[in-house]
Amino acid sequence: MMSKKILDLNVDMGESFGAYRMGSDEEVIQYISSANVACGLHAGDPHVMRKTVSMAKAHGVAIGAHPGLPDLIGFGRRDLKVSPDELKDYFVYQIGALKAFVEAAGMRLQHVKQHGALLKMALEDEALGLAMAEATKEVSPELIFVTHSGISLVDIARGIGLRVAREAYADRAYHQDKTLVSRKLKGSVIKDPEQIKARIQQLMKTGTVTTIEGKTLELEFDTIALHGDTPGASEIIRTIRKKLDELGVTIKPMAEIC
Amino acid sequence: MMSKKILDLNVDMGESFGAYRMGSDEEVIQYISSANVACGLHAGDPHVMRKTVSMAKAHGVAIGAHPGLPDLIGFGRRDLKVSPDELKDYFVYQIGALKAFVEAAGMRLQHVKQHGALLKMALEDEALGLAMAEATKEVSPELIFVTHSGISLVDIARGIGLRVAREAYADRAYHQDKTLVSRKLKGSVIKDPEQIKARIQQLMKTGTVTTIEGKTLELEFDTIALHGDTPGASEIIRTIRKKLDELGVTIKPMAEIC
Amino acid sequence: MMSKKILDLNVDMGESFGAYRMGSDEEVIQYISSANVACGLHAGDPHVMRKTVSMAKAHGVAIGAHPGLPDLIGFGRRDLKVSPDELKDYFVYQIGALKAFVEAAGMRLQHVKQHGALLKMALEDEALGLAMAEATKEVSPELIFVTHSGISLVDIARGIGLRVAREAYADRAYHQDKTLVSRKLKGSVIKDPEQIKARIQQLMKTGTVTTIEGKTLELEFDTIALHGDTPGASEIIRTIRKKLDELGVTIKPMAEIC
Amino acid sequence: MMSKKILDLNVDMGESFGAYRMGSDEEVIQYISSANVACGLHAGDPHVMRKTVSMAKAHGVAIGAHPGLPDLIGFGRRDLKVSPDELKDYFVYQIGALKAFVEAAGMRLQHVKQHGALLKMALEDEALGLAMAEATKEVSPELIFVTHSGISLVDIARGIGLRVAREAYADRAYHQDKTLVSRKLKGSVIKDPEQIKARIQQLMKTGTVTTIEGKTLELEFDTIALHGDTPGASEIIRTIRKKLDELGVTIKPMAEIC
Repeated sequence: MMSKKILDLNVDMGESFGAYRMGSDEEVIQYISSANVACGLHAGDPHVMRKTVSMAKAHGVAIGAHPGLPDLIGFGRRDLKVSPDELKDYFVYQIGALKAFVEAAGMRLQHVKQHGALLKMALEDEALGLAMAEATKEVSPELIFVTHSGISLVDIARGIGLRVAREAYADRAYHQDKTLVSRKLKGSVIKDPEQIKARIQQLMKTGTVTTIEGKTLELEFDTIALHGDTPGASEIIRTIRKKLDELGVTIKPMAEIC
Repeated sequence: MMSKKILDLNVDMGESFGAYRMGSDEEVIQYISSANVACGLHAGDPHVMRKTVSMAKAHGVAIGAHPGLPDLIGFGRRDLKVSPDELKDYFVYQIGALKAFVEAAGMRLQHVKQHGALLKMALEDEALGLAMAEATKEVSPELIFVTHSGISLVDIARGIGLRVAREAYADRAYHQDKTLVSRKLKGSVIKDPEQIKARIQQLMKTGTVTTIEGKTLELEFDTIALHGDTPGASEIIRTIRKKLDELGVTIKPMAEIC
Repeated sequence: MMSKKILDLNVDMGESFGAYRMGSDEEVIQYISSANVACGLHAGDPHVMRKTVSMAKAHGVAIGAHPGLPDLIGFGRRDLKVSPDELKDYFVYQIGALKAFVEAAGMRLQHVKQHGALLKMALEDEALGLAMAEATKEVSPELIFVTHSGISLVDIARGIGLRVAREAYADRAYHQDKTLVSRKLKGSVIKDPEQIKARIQQLMKTGTVTTIEGKTLELEFDTIALHGDTPGASEIIRTIRKKLDELGVTIKPMAEIC
Repeated sequence: MMSKKILDLNVDMGESFGAYRMGSDEEVIQYISSANVACGLHAGDPHVMRKTVSMAKAHGVAIGAHPGLPDLIGFGRRDLKVSPDELKDYFVYQIGALKAFVEAAGMRLQHVKQHGALLKMALEDEALGLAMAEATKEVSPELIFVTHSGISLVDIARGIGLRVAREAYADRAYHQDKTLVSRKLKGSVIKDPEQIKARIQQLMKTGTVTTIEGKTLELEFDTIALHGDTPGASEIIRTIRKKLDELGVTIKPMAEIC
C-alpha cells in the first residue's frame, strides 16, 4: 500500500438526549472531518439533531447518519433479535429523519454507519448486514456505507452497488482476525495521544496495525474512527489533530477520499 | 362559490404500532385519495409506515405526513407545552422519516397535516402554527400544508409561501365560528352515511355547511376529512364513496385540486 | 399422578396500551381464575393496570405480574441481550408497580410469570432465570413463581425458597422434550374448544399430554395457561369453562392449589 | 415561630438514565437527609433506582419517590394535559415501583414529592393536586406528602389524612405570594453557599425569607430543598452542610421532624 497524505477522521456525535448531555461535541467537532449523528432511537433527539447538523455545517464537517436499535435505555449496545425487515425499516426511518435536517441546512447527507450492537449482529447474521445496506441504498444510492475494514459486510454493501468506506480504529486494539479487542480486556482502548498518533502514522504509511498479539496486520481503510465519549476525549482528539497537522496530513471528509 | 365536481377525501392511516392494530387501513384505502400517515411519535412505527406507503401506492392514493406530539401513551391527543423550536424539530424529524419511505417507494410526499392536540395548540398560540408551517417548508417547499378551513394558520402558512389545502369535516358538526363541536357533545360526530353524503353534496354545491345551531356557514375547502378509526368506519366510507361515484364526483388527491 | 378435580386457568391480560386495545379482557376475565397482568415495559400502562386489577377483583380472579422486556415496539417478544442485573431490576420495577395497584384495591399480588422472549432466554441462560426468581423473592417471598413445567427454572426458583407453579399449555402442541412446538409450524396452536377440553381432561386424569409426534408425555402442572389474544379467544375460553363446569371441575386460583 | 435546631435537607436524585449521567449523587448523598428519587417516567431507570436506594441506605439517607410526567425527552418539565385519573395512575405506578426497591433493601419509603411541571399544574388545577395526594395515600397512608409551603395543596393533602412536609427553597428567590421567582429572571437561583447558609439560618431562627422585592415573608417549613443538578452543586451542598454542622444544627430525615 502506498503512503496516504489525506485522511478522514470520523467521530460519533449528537448522542445527547433531552436534558441529558453526552460527549463534548462542541469541542470535538473542531478537529474532525466526518460526524456520525445519532437519529433518535438509541440516542439523540430531533432538537439535538438540528443542533449537531448546524455545528457540523459551521465547521465544514460532513454528516452521516448513525442509526441504532430502538433501545434508548441500553444506548443501542445490546443485541436485539430483530428481523432483517424490521432493521431495514428502522434504518430508513432514522436516515430519512436526519437527512431532512441535513437538507434543511442546505447540505447533503454523506454516509451511514451502524451503531453499537449492530456491527456484531451483522457479523453473526449477514441478512442483517444486507438489510442495513439495502436501507441505505433505498434512501439514496449516493450515500457512502461505512463499516469495519475487512468484514464480509464490505462486500455485501458493494455487491448492491454502494460506495463503501472501510473504517479503522486508531484508539482500539486489534486481533489478528481484524476484530477489535473486547473493551473488557486490558489494553483494548488506547488513550495516549502519542500512541494513537503513531498508530495513525503506521496506518497511513504502511497500511498496517500492530495487533495486541504483537503481529503486523494489513488493514485497508478509508476513514479512521476516534471515540468522543471517553473522559478526556476532546483533549485527546485535539492533540491528535495538532500532530497530524504538523505532519502535513490533510483532513478531509470521506466523500473526497474513498 | 361554484359547484365542484372533483373532490379529495383524506383519512388518517398508519396508526398501528408494533403488535397493536388501529383502524381498518386495508379497507379504507380503497375509497380515498389522500392518506395522512402517522410518523412514529404519537402512533405508527417504521414497519407500519413502510406497509402503509406500499398500500397507498398500490391503490393510487397520495401520501401525506401526519406528525404528532411525542406522547405515544396519549396518542398525541393531550396538549404538551412544547416550544415552537421543539415542535419545529419534531415536525422535520417525522416528515423526513416518512418522506424517506415514500421516496424509496418511488413516490413523492404530497402533504403535511398536524395530528391530534396540535390543531388546538396552533389556535391558541400562533407561534406553534408557524413552527409547523416552517418545518414543512424546510423539508420541502413543494409540500402542501393541510389545516382547518377558516383559521389564521391558513394565512400563516400561505404567508411563508406554502400551498395550503383547507380541510372540511363531513362527519363532524360545526359551530358558527368554524370550530368543530366537541366530541363530548351529542351530535358532534355524524355516522349516518346518507347524512354525510348530503353534507358533502352541500359543501360541493354551495360551499356551506349547516351548523349544529341550524345556521348556514360558508366554508372554503380543498379536501374533505373522514374518520377511519371509529367503529364501522370502513363501511361508512365505502358507502359514501359509492354514493359519490353515482353522483359523478371524481375523487382525486389534493395536489391535483388545490 | 392421581386425578385432579381442582384447576387454575391463567390468561395474559392488561396488554392494552393508551389508545390501543389488545385482547378481550372484559369477556375472558369471567371464565378464569388467575390473570397475568402486563406492567408497562412491553405492554400495558398505569391506567390499564388499574382497570385490569379492578376487573379481576370484581370477578374474584387472582392477579399476577407479567413482567417483560423494555421493548414496547416488539411487545417483549424479541430476545434482548440484557445482563442478569438489568433483568432483575426490570422485574422488581414492574412487579412493584403492579403490586401497588393490587394493594390499593385491597388485594394481594398472587404470582409472577415471565412474558414473551423471557422464557426462551431463561432456558438459554440460567443466570437470567435466577435473576427473575431473585427479583420475585426480593419483592415478596410470598409470591408464587410461575414457569414452564419441566424446565430447570422450576428448580432454580425452588432452590431460593420460592413456591413455584408449573404451567402447562392446553392450547399449544408439545414436543417430547417438553418444549412447545414453534408457532411457525402447523398444528402448534390448538383452537378447537373440544380438543382443548380433551387435553385438559387428559392432563387432569393422567398428568400427560400427547405430543405432536404422537407420544405420551408426563407433565406435572399446577396451572393451565390459555391464550386470550387470538381471534375468537374469548369464545373458546367461554366454551372450555362451560365444559369444565359440566365435568364438575372446580376452577380456583393457583394460590389455593400449588 | 420558635427557632429550630433540627433540619431536613432534601435533594432530587437518581435522575440518570441508561448511559446518561445526571447530577453528582455519589457526592451529594453524603450531606443530606432525604433523597427524592426519580421513578422512570421523566428520568431514572430501574437500575439507577436500585443503585440510588443502595447509596441512600449506605449513608443513612431517607428515600422518597419523585414521580413525574411520562415525558422523558422533556425531563418532565413541560405541562402535559393529563386528566386527574391519568395522573393518579402515573403516581401509583411510579411510587409502587420505587417502593419495591426500597423495601427490597430493607428500608421504608418515607415520602412522595411531585417533580417538574407538576407543581405548577397542581397550582392551576386543584383536581390534579388532589390526584397526586390520593395516589400517595393509596400506596400507603403512612407516606409523607412533600409540597411547596403555603399553597392549597398542603391543605388538600392534609384534608385526606396525609402527613404533609412543607418545603422551602434555600437556593431559590421568592416573591411575596410565596411563589418562586422564575428561573428566567436574574437572581432567581442563589449559588453562593454563604448566602444560602444565611437564608437557612433566617428560616430556622425566624421562619421567614427575604423576598426578591426585599420584604420579609413568613414561610412555614418542614424540609429545605437544595438543587443537586446545577454546576458545582455538590461543592455548594458540601459547604452548606459544613456550615450547618458548625452551627450545631442536626440534620435529620423529615419523618423525624414533621
